Amino acid sequence: MYRPQNLRIPGPTFVPQTVLNATARPMINHRGPEFAALMAGLTRALQDYLNTQNDVLLVTASGSGGMEAAIANTLSSGDRVLLFVNGAFGEKFASICKAYGVDARRVDVPWGRAVEPDLVRDELAKEKGKDAAKAVLITHNETSTGVLNPLREISEVVRESDKLLIVDSISGAGGVELLVDDWGLDVVVSASQKAWGAPPGVAIVTMSEKAWKAYERSTLPKSYFDLRAHKAALEKGATPATPAVSVFIGLQESLRLMAEEGQDAIIKRHRDLAHATRRGLQALNLAVFGDERYASPCVTAFRMPARVDARNLIRILRDDYDTVIGGGQGRLEGQIARVGHMGFVTLQDIVAFFGALEPALKDLNQPVEPGQSISAVLRAYAETAAPPARPARGAARRDGADPVAARR
Amino acid sequence: MYRPQNLRIPGPTFVPQTVLNATARPMINHRGPEFAALMAGLTRALQDYLNTQNDVLLVTASGSGGMEAAIANTLSSGDRVLLFVNGAFGEKFASICKAYGVDARRVDVPWGRAVEPDLVRDELAKEKGKDAAKAVLITHNETSTGVLNPLREISEVVRESDKLLIVDSISGAGGVELLVDDWGLDVVVSASQKAWGAPPGVAIVTMSEKAWKAYERSTLPKSYFDLRAHKAALEKGATPATPAVSVFIGLQESLRLMAEEGQDAIIKRHRDLAHATRRGLQALNLAVFGDERYASPCVTAFRMPARVDARNLIRILRDDYDTVIGGGQGRLEGQIARVGHMGFVTLQDIVAFFGALEPALKDLNQPVEPGQSISAVLRAYAETAAPPARPARGAARRDGADPVAARR
Repeated sequence: MYRPQNLRIPGPTFVPQTVLNATARPMINHRGPEFAALMAGLTRALQDYLNTQNDVLLVTASGSGGMEAAIANTLSSGDRVLLFVNGAFGEKFASICKAYGVDARRVDVPWGRAVEPDLVRDELAKEKGKDAAKAVLITHNETSTGVLNPLREISEVVRESDKLLIVDSISGAGGVELLVDDWGLDVVVSASQKAWGAPPGVAIVTMSEKAWKAYERSTLPKSYFDLRAHKAALEKGATPATPAVSVFIGLQESLRLMAEEGQDAIIKRHRDLAHATRRGLQALNLAVFGDERYASPCVTAFRMPARVDARNLIRILRDDYDTVIGGGQGRLEGQIARVGHMGFVTLQDIVAFFGALEPALKDLNQPVEPGQSISAVLRAYAETAAPPARPARGAARRDGADPVAARR
Repeated sequence: MYRPQNLRIPGPTFVPQTVLNATARPMINHRGPEFAALMAGLTRALQDYLNTQNDVLLVTASGSGGMEAAIANTLSSGDRVLLFVNGAFGEKFASICKAYGVDARRVDVPWGRAVEPDLVRDELAKEKGKDAAKAVLITHNETSTGVLNPLREISEVVRESDKLLIVDSISGAGGVELLVDDWGLDVVVSASQKAWGAPPGVAIVTMSEKAWKAYERSTLPKSYFDLRAHKAALEKGATPATPAVSVFIGLQESLRLMAEEGQDAIIKRHRDLAHATRRGLQALNLAVFGDERYASPCVTAFRMPARVDARNLIRILRDDYDTVIGGGQGRLEGQIARVGHMGFVTLQDIVAFFGALEPALKDLNQPVEPGQSISAVLRAYAETAAPPARPARGAARRDGADPVAARR
């Protein structure tokens, strides 16, 4: 029986058919001119999208591999760093630091809360003298809690210091505003399977000039993740080791689709669909987890009704309604569920999600009126969506503006 | 214009259409039951194919990442290892050791020659006492020279010692005989894009019990490549970080096709096509590079005629005849070319290769009679191919035997 899934985990995200088709193109030589052209195009498109002139390096690995590359290429054993943790991916940074003997001073913020700029300022003030932290490590979008840390404001604070700013934006980049150069982000990590809507297998890492200076001093062992080797290979249109060619080709097609839509439209779509998702959940009396002021445009976590284990709801959604969402990670397992709305996600995907959530909750003996969340979703979306402007003749963009050109 | 390529580099190899199609299936949850079933099936199929009960771990990375995992998981900084180098991939092992502070005692063998068991015995005899090497590192199939080191015989020698035996069989496994358990190989590394005929992105690493004991003592930093984390995740049907899902699905389909053909038939096909390739080259007066006694069944390197730069021949083959072969690596650049014949390769692919090589050589003013190499190829193949036995009723195998059952 044909049972298509509504894949609503926060990554891997839904991959459009044209991207899947691109992924399935015949294999090519990873040292030939076709691949060199692919690398050049990918690099340019990612630099555009990340608003940066910095080097953008593509590493065949998951996002965690990119986080490891960020650390191994800029730090040395015993180096002190200031690490803000407000979820499972902050913990991931901590675990990589530990593995490499990097002395991470953790500042823990309760899961579901954001890292506020004032906290960063206070903690940075303690980092003076010769043993002071050399870098600040922070998660941009905390996939485990649905919180988007206010990176722009945090970067302003960090820029007042001499610290390197290393950002895990694995599940943020591509879906939310991210001005790598304007915000002075030294290392930013993302991954192909998140808002970029390509299959997993490629980590994206940006390196600023300051990050390259740190590379020169860094003594942590690195071979596969050596970013200077990646940069040297890229100058010849290649990678140091055999790349995940099919994922690279898929990512190229994703970026083509994203360029058609435009960066500002994508960011707005993510924000609006996240808003609509939260309103839908609230209409079902499901509490959104975390501080709504910092609600992620990419993933929404929500609490269970009394006496419902999230694992049960997730199982019913999957087995009976072909809708796949994420569970709570670490200490939140069983307590929350997480619905992803990043990448190539539409209003209809969100409506379909609630069209599964409502009957699933009913199966769990929760009081639900058919459509009660969906009307809230549609209403919320209508409020936020741009008034339908008549596009200029020949213009593909619905709002008639070219936000990329406007920014330049 | 439709110009299909004959991709004859030694990896990434040609990927069959059904494998490409599998690669393009809709994305699935990497933490769900479908992926768990995929992992279980992949592990079992690879254990079968590698003739091992050892753990087989799948790491989202190229083969080089797998080599790094082999070292980082079994050794400590300052550990001494005995490393045999007879090509570019032996050099790769050396470079990883250097990056990690592993003290590799190199034994260099001229490129194109094999590492002979007697040499291994002599060198091992020097490794006594408390500073003795803890491990022997060796390349199985040296992709850069077309030499297959006699691993079975080497492993017999190493087994007389207490050393860990770490093998890069990235471009060997799947195409040549490899009995991981019988030969006592502690760590074996391969990669999806070589003889397995899947897209690149997945490294395959086997770990013996002895290798796991070495893991316990190992202090090299590891996080992304931490194989114990991979083993723990595998027990739950998952991977520690997001895997290259589409490549995993492609590899599953490759393994299905390989199981249809059968391990012995695949090994014989590689051997026979390699033999036919060498005869074809010789018919064109092109000298096969390296010691023919150890000629690789997976890749053949050959020297150029006088006054021909290999880079020119490679360019003409690519631009005018849509045939993509590899060049010389490192010190052999310009001197040799390398034609891959591993994975899903047929007699017709080899014939097509010579159907491009002949006119390309003619374009380079070499004396060539049309078909002179192809008749040699077909003749050589006819000599080696099994006499067409009538298959037993209902048996799919051409030779009527079940080598896997026979081995058990």
